[in-house]
Amino acid sequence: MTNDPEAPDRRDAPEALHELLRAHASVRDFTDDAVDDGLLARCVASAQCAATSSNVQAYSLLRVRDPERRARLAELCGGQPQVERAGFFGVVCGDLRRDALLAGDAGGELVANLEAFLLATIDATLFAQNLVVALEGEGLGTCYIGGLRNRVDEVDELLELPRLVLPLFGLCAGRPRTRNATKPRLAVDAVLFDGRYPDDDALRAHAREYDARMEPHFAARGKPHWSWTGQIARKFTGAMRPHLFAFYRSKGVELESA
Amino acid sequence: MTNDPEAPDRRDAPEALHELLRAHASVRDFTDDAVDDGLLARCVASAQCAATSSNVQAYSLLRVRDPERRARLAELCGGQPQVERAGFFGVVCGDLRRDALLAGDAGGELVANLEAFLLATIDATLFAQNLVVALEGEGLGTCYIGGLRNRVDEVDELLELPRLVLPLFGLCAGRPRTRNATKPRLAVDAVLFDGRYPDDDALRAHAREYDARMEPHFAARGKPHWSWTGQIARKFTGAMRPHLFAFYRSKGVELESA
Repeated sequence: MTNDPEAPDRRDAPEALHELLRAHASVRDFTDDAVDDGLLARCVASAQCAATSSNVQAYSLLRVRDPERRARLAELCGGQPQVERAGFFGVVCGDLRRDALLAGDAGGELVANLEAFLLATIDATLFAQNLVVALEGEGLGTCYIGGLRNRVDEVDELLELPRLVLPLFGLCAGRPRTRNATKPRLAVDAVLFDGRYPDDDALRAHAREYDARMEPHFAARGKPHWSWTGQIARKFTGAMRPHLFAFYRSKGVELESA
Repeated sequence: MTNDPEAPDRRDAPEALHELLRAHASVRDFTDDAVDDGLLARCVASAQCAATSSNVQAYSLLRVRDPERRARLAELCGGQPQVERAGFFGVVCGDLRRDALLAGDAGGELVANLEAFLLATIDATLFAQNLVVALEGEGLGTCYIGGLRNRVDEVDELLELPRLVLPLFGLCAGRPRTRNATKPRLAVDAVLFDGRYPDDDALRAHAREYDARMEPHFAARGKPHWSWTGQIARKFTGAMRPHLFAFYRSKGVELESA
């Protein structure tokens, strides 16, 4: 089963929504138009209606407009010009600061252990994805910036984020100047399992099937010798972003706290 | 600025999408109808089009149908009957197993440090929220089950999840029998900050403003003396789910690894 948009039984399906979700491709080339404050607020308000653990809403979104800061952030994120040039750039944060404050005001003390960190990370990401859907529904393009974690301590210092405000990733949005083609994804039955997690040979077969579908994608980008399997193997050999544990600890997070 | 659906400048807005997102409320009371396999596959395929870090797609969704397992899971999740009764129940997992396998086949070794854990958690959550949007667009109701982490080691054992498959939360979906009212959220300007993170007094003012809007919500549920601030203070006093660090370590995660 592949990501075929022409699935057989979609008579009653809300076509437009599936089409919107399936049209997603990260945009990295934006026009110079700023993103309107009212449009952004409307999309944020819709995004906030995402589920949140026990209604905690443990997230915040810090918009950055200042051109000098944007230029510096583009550099800190690994030289990504869209961070400087997109009509909107914001930092999505897991946010336990408000919760720590309110608990403290009541005489309690928040323990920012792994559960609290996960709760905030998941809340922030549910919100962010709802925001992306809303923005794309408005015709804007979006791009998450995981590279924000490359030199996250410097990002944190530049933006003067206080304790327990935990930068997770960046988000660019704006009017697309050019759009990348959508990428094929793993087959549905490579991520949706029924009753039992598959064995290693089945995982390898899914990867091979996907490699075959990704070949034209790499070829079209002038990389005929690349494969998804090869990309994964390269990416996951060795420790990625090894500074993160110390960074989040410096922000008040104690992942190992029981 | 509150979550007012009647924002002034929505002339060109895709009304239906904003309405769908704003209509979200967790559903915990479902009809007995199963969720159709084709409908689920179509929604999963759309959900997979969510952004994913470097196209890694580090997630999986394990559907559980077996009634005995569903009953046991409902118990393990803190006595939540919808886990047993919803037309669909699945466990959303951050999944580094496939990546570790492909890296290993190429002679490398994946280090499941905090960056890898975050990557998988964020990828899985982006996918899950896209799935929720797609399912709700099809007229189904949904409910995330964070309580899956209550006794996650027993869930893990019951479902025989292998190493580096990391259960994060559950997801129920199905035809709603009854729907809860939507809840007000924090004001937009309590989560969207422009250029600078606010000071503690501003955070307290946001909480008070929200407490006032939440009063009718609690009153309607027969809890006139509750407040959001009080809920937060109670929830965040003391360490929540203190077993998680040891659990994920037992699955091969080494958060502190550099």
